Amino acid sequence: MVITREKIDKRFVDLFESTFGFTREEFDHLLTYFEVLTLKKKEHYFRAGDVCRQQAYINKGCTRTYVLDNEGHERILFFAFEDWWIGDLESYYTQKPGVNFVQALEDCELLIIKRDLFQKLALENPKMQQWYTYKVQRAANAMWRRLSEVKTESPEERYLNMLNTQPQVIDRVPLQHIAAYLNIEPQSLSRLRKRISKKI
Amino acid sequence: MVITREKIDKRFVDLFESTFGFTREEFDHLLTYFEVLTLKKKEHYFRAGDVCRQQAYINKGCTRTYVLDNEGHERILFFAFEDWWIGDLESYYTQKPGVNFVQALEDCELLIIKRDLFQKLALENPKMQQWYTYKVQRAANAMWRRLSEVKTESPEERYLNMLNTQPQVIDRVPLQHIAAYLNIEPQSLSRLRKRISKKI
Repeated sequence: MVITREKIDKRFVDLFESTFGFTREEFDHLLTYFEVLTLKKKEHYFRAGDVCRQQAYINKGCTRTYVLDNEGHERILFFAFEDWWIGDLESYYTQKPGVNFVQALEDCELLIIKRDLFQKLALENPKMQQWYTYKVQRAANAMWRRLSEVKTESPEERYLNMLNTQPQVIDRVPLQHIAAYLNIEPQSLSRLRKRISKKI
Repeated sequence: MVITREKIDKRFVDLFESTFGFTREEFDHLLTYFEVLTLKKKEHYFRAGDVCRQQAYINKGCTRTYVLDNEGHERILFFAFEDWWIGDLESYYTQKPGVNFVQALEDCELLIIKRDLFQKLALENPKMQQWYTYKVQRAANAMWRRLSEVKTESPEERYLNMLNTQPQVIDRVPLQHIAAYLNIEPQSLSRLRKRISKKI
């Protein structure tokens, strides 16, 4: 499938053209290296043990990224929606098997660029390297913030935070996954929601 | 104080010369941009509200990075030793006030490079930019791994993990800080240590 700028989230175009100063020509050239990957709801994009060989931008849909604990319970690290990049960051960098799972929570349309193609482009155009640094920097910031939240906030505070920063979670993510993200039982989440609705 | 390669952790020299292919001349030139900053034990290198305007490499000593929860309790995110970089990554990137605290747990010797100098150098030498990407990538990986640990492991598992990956913590970090890192009471940590020593 040929990718045209009309089919792409405007934020993707802006990121390259406005933030990183790609000319229209450079951006159109870059686009020819991307492919579309569609995922059905519940399909996995990545599984622990895989090696992450591409970068993936969510053009449509949402996903959850989770890990397994020693008892095999799924622990959700974050949800991702349009304009996020997904995958296993460390595995992409080291090219060793990853530890994360990424699963579609809705039918998804991803824009994919293979690692070897990206590296070739980055050698030709330093703006690609700058963009990658920016992307990794934002991932580092997001992970650092999540770690701080988990360390300092109660489930109720984390839930309110989520309503604030990712309000779409409520409409698009099943309750049991939100509860798993907060590390609480679904029943506790229902009680928490009732308590909050009384306060508001 | 003039910094000479003899006074510097060998890993710092290797990072630039072996991993990033700096010539001896390029590395010596880079060194002229670094300054030494010493911290007394318990002194803060960074406080929430500060803007992070430099990168700091631990040449000697160790630190703890923590955040405050809503009740003002300190929650430790990680300990850093020789060959780590410290600061507030997001504040460094955004130049907005940070949320972390970094405190010396021993007398420390840091190698500092100011952000504006670094950016000037990165324009001159693309290897600097590659090195920065590498550094941020490693920070992102470390934060992601910490988040996974906190989400999936019991305090005992996290303690054993720490013995494995950062054995120096035991000799160099006071017990109450290790307990704070594990989010348990110091008494619980003592019991945990007794339990583990019986198993080994």
